[in-house]
Amino acid sequence: MKKTSTYAASARGPADHEVRDQIVLAATEHFSRYGYEKTTVSDLAKAIGFSKAYIYKFFESKQAIGEMICANCLGQIGTDIKAAIDQADRPPEKLRRMFKSIVELSLQLFSQDRKLYEIATSAATERWQSTLAYEEQIRTLLRGILEEGRQSGDFERKTPLDETVMAIYLVMRPYLNPLILQHSLDYTEDAPSQLSSLVLRSLSP
Amino acid sequence: MKKTSTYAASARGPADHEVRDQIVLAATEHFSRYGYEKTTVSDLAKAIGFSKAYIYKFFESKQAIGEMICANCLGQIGTDIKAAIDQADRPPEKLRRMFKSIVELSLQLFSQDRKLYEIATSAATERWQSTLAYEEQIRTLLRGILEEGRQSGDFERKTPLDETVMAIYLVMRPYLNPLILQHSLDYTEDAPSQLSSLVLRSLSP
Repeated sequence: MKKTSTYAASARGPADHEVRDQIVLAATEHFSRYGYEKTTVSDLAKAIGFSKAYIYKFFESKQAIGEMICANCLGQIGTDIKAAIDQADRPPEKLRRMFKSIVELSLQLFSQDRKLYEIATSAATERWQSTLAYEEQIRTLLRGILEEGRQSGDFERKTPLDETVMAIYLVMRPYLNPLILQHSLDYTEDAPSQLSSLVLRSLSP
Repeated sequence: MKKTSTYAASARGPADHEVRDQIVLAATEHFSRYGYEKTTVSDLAKAIGFSKAYIYKFFESKQAIGEMICANCLGQIGTDIKAAIDQADRPPEKLRRMFKSIVELSLQLFSQDRKLYEIATSAATERWQSTLAYEEQIRTLLRGILEEGRQSGDFERKTPLDETVMAIYLVMRPYLNPLILQHSLDYTEDAPSQLSSLVLRSLSP
């Protein structure tokens, strides 16, 4: 019985993860045009050409779709930040690249994909899992640079590593968090170099 | 004619600055109870027992009254921060006190005087003169501590002073600006000590 139904499902149509991807893709397109907050699952279903019930078979709520979009989007930013870090050889330059790319990529999301930024804002306000994972990813990247710099002798080793990671994370946070970034637009041009210089001075052995 | 009217005015009632103070005092009381955004000048006039026209004789708009309240409020915070700094002897401790008092006083405004915080939020959003003056005052206090620390040998002197002031100001800003502070409440307990330690490491000679 089970075997038959599996066979029937796969013969009838695409696998679940394909449908989920399809819904997320269409929702990303739709939200980035019409905004996240104002769109209901009914609007979305109509736009995609699926029934509302069919969408609810794959996502329990609009937020669950938003979570997936947000996770994809922040995941991409995380990958891009990592790529920017990897382009540099020495830990101090890696730290500068990290600051610079954080500000640039957050601003890009803010200015180009204003409607998707709205999702990131909801995510940050409501502390979605995807936001927490992104924040953790940033701290992990930061920790990696600091460990490397401590080994190479570029950075001091007296301060407990956890404390250094957290303090630098707090310095970066206003440019990572979309809720704060929108109030820091006057400073985004000079902040990356001024703050990385300050942080590098604090790390000197 | 002019002389008579001046004489008549001063004989008839209090001086202009006294009336202004009276309006500001009553408005502070009223706004802190009913909120700033939702109150109109008519509401305010009714509550104070003045005519709307009489209020407009002294303030050109509700914002002008808000500006004065905001200036008083931020001026008081500035004075309290300065008092906290003055309690310490050495420049490094002064910097720690400055960070600590900024976070404490901003939080106090946020939690105790929630409705007045609303005025500070409008002020920060619309970049009122009182906000700009407050930001300037903070940078001036910071510059004073840095100059003293450079002279005493506590702080390094290689980095241009303007750059140091601006970079540290950027580190403090998320806890000064009410729009940002409301998104940083998870960090207000640890941030002052973690960030002042980082900044002090960056200042070591």
